[in-house]
Amino acid sequence: MPETPAFAAATHVVFRGDGTFSVEIPDGWDIVGNVDGGLLLALLGRAVTAATGRPDPVTVTGHYLRPGRSGPATVATEVLKEGKRFSTARATLRAGDGDVVTALATTGTLDSDPGKPIHLAGSPPDLPPVDECELLVGTDGFPPTFMDRVEVRLHPEDAGFIRGEPTGVPLLRGWFRLRDGEPIDSIGLLLAVDSFPPTIFNASLPFGWTPTVELTAHLRARPAPGWLACSFATRFITGGFLEVDGEVWDAHGDLVAQSRQLALVPRG
Amino acid sequence: MPETPAFAAATHVVFRGDGTFSVEIPDGWDIVGNVDGGLLLALLGRAVTAATGRPDPVTVTGHYLRPGRSGPATVATEVLKEGKRFSTARATLRAGDGDVVTALATTGTLDSDPGKPIHLAGSPPDLPPVDECELLVGTDGFPPTFMDRVEVRLHPEDAGFIRGEPTGVPLLRGWFRLRDGEPIDSIGLLLAVDSFPPTIFNASLPFGWTPTVELTAHLRARPAPGWLACSFATRFITGGFLEVDGEVWDAHGDLVAQSRQLALVPRG
Repeated sequence: MPETPAFAAATHVVFRGDGTFSVEIPDGWDIVGNVDGGLLLALLGRAVTAATGRPDPVTVTGHYLRPGRSGPATVATEVLKEGKRFSTARATLRAGDGDVVTALATTGTLDSDPGKPIHLAGSPPDLPPVDECELLVGTDGFPPTFMDRVEVRLHPEDAGFIRGEPTGVPLLRGWFRLRDGEPIDSIGLLLAVDSFPPTIFNASLPFGWTPTVELTAHLRARPAPGWLACSFATRFITGGFLEVDGEVWDAHGDLVAQSRQLALVPRG
Repeated sequence: MPETPAFAAATHVVFRGDGTFSVEIPDGWDIVGNVDGGLLLALLGRAVTAATGRPDPVTVTGHYLRPGRSGPATVATEVLKEGKRFSTARATLRAGDGDVVTALATTGTLDSDPGKPIHLAGSPPDLPPVDECELLVGTDGFPPTFMDRVEVRLHPEDAGFIRGEPTGVPLLRGWFRLRDGEPIDSIGLLLAVDSFPPTIFNASLPFGWTPTVELTAHLRARPAPGWLACSFATRFITGGFLEVDGEVWDAHGDLVAQSRQLALVPRG
């Protein structure tokens, strides 16, 4: 029997009755010990699609309550509405020491092809070919082991921070796929939207942990097979907060996801 | 005793014990019978700030389950985390026939002045003076009675749809304040982010109801007294969905709120 691919295994949920699922968060999806926020959102996405009996998340919002650790956990779901086209549910990931992430999600059925856009004031990021972008690789320190689970290849123009030369522009563009080209379903998009380093690594700020308060993803279509072209940009670092706006485009050039997160400015 | 100002009265919540609040949604805050989504979000904002004992919503996400009507309703809240700086809670507005809106919110204490921005790649919309912008007024038909509760003055360049001449660009910029200049607190920002007509009124689409699936607001600071300068823009109408991105700037020129909603393209 073929081995379950890594992302599918990491987001596998097992129904235990009464809206509850058990999960086992594997090692290696963490960033200096904290499980990636996108993986946590994807886990909740798996649970809410299962709980509502609809294949795709349409919009998911997660509020991050405490860092996630690898190991066993549960997802408690509650379906709030079952409509003709969409269902809405909430879900909370709980580990030994309490609630890790709580989410609100609306699920439905996305097209594999979003069709001709009615209005499009934007385009995929202009990226060099994959081989000419810079692969983020895992080391003992930075980048973290999470970067061995996904393949993120940064636009060379946005990779300055790796060499200690931030561009001054909090923008990161690049290619994304799962390790070994594991197919990406709509749940995989929830991982993609939180898989790049913090945009502020390219800003003139001290490196530091930028805790996500809230992350919302809107999914427009199931992605076509192949690399995803992504961009993450921050326009406003004010009042102690910053937003990160993400766009994910598939290999057909279609917008498949938008995301926005609210994060805290690192305290120097 | 002075009369309670209209918005404060419309969002007044009364604690009934066990995390539950009663509310009375007054007449006149509706758009062709459906209570404005921003007023519903503001009501939930009042309840979660009361439930968590913190003065300001920092980020609120609402999923809209069915149209809201004026009349009595309840808000059930549950506090999920109480941290050092922030608390997280969920809240659901329930009326006679079921759940109307369910929300997830993180609350805290916002500054009245966000201070010097660390990074700012954007500015308040370039609006003519208030008197030179077009006041949206209530009539028997369109605009709806909601427009008698707030004062929205549109940039003349974006007001073409009013005369049946959509600009072709799904962008609406304009000034916002509460009727009679009632002061706007952080809860009022939750109203502001859903107080303008749909952006697609300026797109080449049939007029129609564009149901909001999800609306998230991020608040950066409490607004200074005075008019708010707002912009609402849609970049992608694809896959049956559209996003509306809002920015709200206060009279000091500070960004006080960002919003994004996911809405459904009207079915022609």
